[in-house]
Amino acid sequence: MTETYSNLDQYAEELAKNAKKATRGLRTLSAERRNAALNLVAQKLRAQKAEILAANKLDLEASVGKISDAMMDRLTLNDTRIEAMAKGAEEIAAFADPLGRTLESRDLKNGIHISRVAVPLGAIFFIYESRPNVTIDGACLCFKSGNAVVLRGGKESLKSSQLLASIFRSALEECGIDKNAVQLVENPDHALVTKLLQMNNYLDLVIPRGGERLIRAVVDQSKIPVIKHFNGICHVYIDKSADIEKARNILINAKTQRTGVCNAMECVLFDRSLDKAAVLDLVKALQDKGVEFFGNAECVRELPNVQDIGDESNYHHEYLALKSSVKFVDGVAEACDHIEKNSSGHTEAIVAEDEAALNYFAANVDSSSVMLNASTRFADGGEYGLGAEVGISTDKIHARGPMGVESLCTYKWILKGNGQVRG
Amino acid sequence: MTETYSNLDQYAEELAKNAKKATRGLRTLSAERRNAALNLVAQKLRAQKAEILAANKLDLEASVGKISDAMMDRLTLNDTRIEAMAKGAEEIAAFADPLGRTLESRDLKNGIHISRVAVPLGAIFFIYESRPNVTIDGACLCFKSGNAVVLRGGKESLKSSQLLASIFRSALEECGIDKNAVQLVENPDHALVTKLLQMNNYLDLVIPRGGERLIRAVVDQSKIPVIKHFNGICHVYIDKSADIEKARNILINAKTQRTGVCNAMECVLFDRSLDKAAVLDLVKALQDKGVEFFGNAECVRELPNVQDIGDESNYHHEYLALKSSVKFVDGVAEACDHIEKNSSGHTEAIVAEDEAALNYFAANVDSSSVMLNASTRFADGGEYGLGAEVGISTDKIHARGPMGVESLCTYKWILKGNGQVRG
Repeated sequence: MTETYSNLDQYAEELAKNAKKATRGLRTLSAERRNAALNLVAQKLRAQKAEILAANKLDLEASVGKISDAMMDRLTLNDTRIEAMAKGAEEIAAFADPLGRTLESRDLKNGIHISRVAVPLGAIFFIYESRPNVTIDGACLCFKSGNAVVLRGGKESLKSSQLLASIFRSALEECGIDKNAVQLVENPDHALVTKLLQMNNYLDLVIPRGGERLIRAVVDQSKIPVIKHFNGICHVYIDKSADIEKARNILINAKTQRTGVCNAMECVLFDRSLDKAAVLDLVKALQDKGVEFFGNAECVRELPNVQDIGDESNYHHEYLALKSSVKFVDGVAEACDHIEKNSSGHTEAIVAEDEAALNYFAANVDSSSVMLNASTRFADGGEYGLGAEVGISTDKIHARGPMGVESLCTYKWILKGNGQVRG
Repeated sequence: MTETYSNLDQYAEELAKNAKKATRGLRTLSAERRNAALNLVAQKLRAQKAEILAANKLDLEASVGKISDAMMDRLTLNDTRIEAMAKGAEEIAAFADPLGRTLESRDLKNGIHISRVAVPLGAIFFIYESRPNVTIDGACLCFKSGNAVVLRGGKESLKSSQLLASIFRSALEECGIDKNAVQLVENPDHALVTKLLQMNNYLDLVIPRGGERLIRAVVDQSKIPVIKHFNGICHVYIDKSADIEKARNILINAKTQRTGVCNAMECVLFDRSLDKAAVLDLVKALQDKGVEFFGNAECVRELPNVQDIGDESNYHHEYLALKSSVKFVDGVAEACDHIEKNSSGHTEAIVAEDEAALNYFAANVDSSSVMLNASTRFADGGEYGLGAEVGISTDKIHARGPMGVESLCTYKWILKGNGQVRG
């Protein structure tokens, strides 16, 4: 693995072939050996802290004035974050093994015993932002599930990620494992990503994380199956039967606990039958927390300090800030219609005491997570008890919603017979 | 739905939008109503037998001399096949409902009850050969699982498929269900398929069945997730520990019971440590059934009437005929190496009495089905107890191997709380 390939095709093919080749050994690598390697990664991260900080300093210095404060923050490693990476590796090592689980099994009439067993997917191409800690998290999750991974982080994090990947690879080597189980794309040229996306003979899955534009570009170009991680345009619907105290807590939590995340609320829907004073109370509670509202003419007229949202299509908007769309709807049915048209299919919540309204919402909303009297902010692999999170899939194929390490597995059918033939 | 669109873009968009729109109602349509519609389809197929045969006659007449005998056979409908379609619809109606199943559930520490529930995927684009019966089978499977489907059969079957789709749609209409749950692409222009493959805002999954070239073209063009149904280059490995009687039965069954199917054997691997007389006996048993062998120099030298396979890469070949590749390998490890290089990942079998060899083969072979002392021909949804088969996926994402109606479902997470917010 080197930066000096003159030929991008050759580099892409080598990365993909190396990954494919590594899958063969990973398929039968015991959980003990995988976990020992992960623990060694943790140990090495702690031991090489000074070098990691030095590499990260180079990335930070090269990025000053070129990227936003939020991006600078994500790019930054410090003692706490390095320790968090090490702890993360240890936690993933301590997880139950996702491989070898019998997903179903039975005896067929002809005496054959059939079982469906969890096995690694193979080789994963993981594309992510300039967050060097994701280099370690992504490598740990893929390796734990017996997959080879080709990591492609944002270019601003290249020096940090190079060092982190090399630490992971040296741990693999010391454990007698093919170090190409973890590879980093060391050339930031986008053309290389495009080339890798054609390599469906070697790579089994692409997971892109990042902005919507990046993900759409990956989907457009990829011949490899993609699991998309789009952002969330999450709704909270307040039914006329809502407990207003619960509604207030959920709205404040969903909108203001963290604003830059995909499971934050981006639109509140009020049932027109709600008591007017209750609606004003809820709006004020959010405004007191600094939330700005954007709504249609009815909202501008009925509610204090609501800005005109303009065209209806603007309801399909993710603010990622202390801002929210707002709308009145005629009950749960119209709430579901609005969500059907404007949601990104991530997470929606209803606040209601009426069982019929809750059931209607749960059945009709086609999003990966539906919250009944709970905050949208719960949509998270850790909260769901899935362990470390690969991401939150907004796809419907293979994995939907929070993805744990089990969603990096596929299965095979094993039929054990005694000479049976088909009649 | 009409053939007369001057504008393909408009036709493609209307099909896709109609399908998407139909998904909304399907999501909450009860199993009783879905099953009643399927039973009505069966009833109508029987009642309109004469019309179906007449439409099929037009397709057959237009295809005479243009397609192979095998394709003519697949295109042909007769009393038996129409009855089989009707029975198929009734059987699918009688299946357990794949929707609404709770796939996992638990109480979180914060008191929220979380469950993962099976729901329809949404809208499926199903591409298949000129086999009019697949129009009904495909529609039944998608509808049973609550999905809208856009059907695109081979152009030779258009008149038959048009009538069959219209029968299905009239049954839906009579049951008060949006008839656009089932649509047929009535314009055979390939450009229309390409356009539909871009419509990932409306369509959730593409399932292409047919030749390798067609499937590769779909993968290359599609922005919608694809589940591929490639053919099978299935291997049978005869270990030195094999029971020769079992080996003989399995080889004959795997190669000769049906030759034109994806789970037929295409290559036999003999352990070099096998008794020479046993190998000659097995080869003769297959040759007595009319099987021609193709092998490398060693096979040509050691075995009677083996033709030179030429380049090693020819081992990656699917004959779909009374022909088979043959090779000697040094035990189960080299058998797995050969399979890794040459298999299409569909189904492989080992015949062995040695447990270690069986276990090694099961762990190292990365194919959707692994048969231990059983014929490759068992790789089939019906044999696995999955009910009617959507197809046999050679993919690793979402569904692998024989796909039952459950693999046309996704899931959503439902969290039932009592006002909880995230800390």
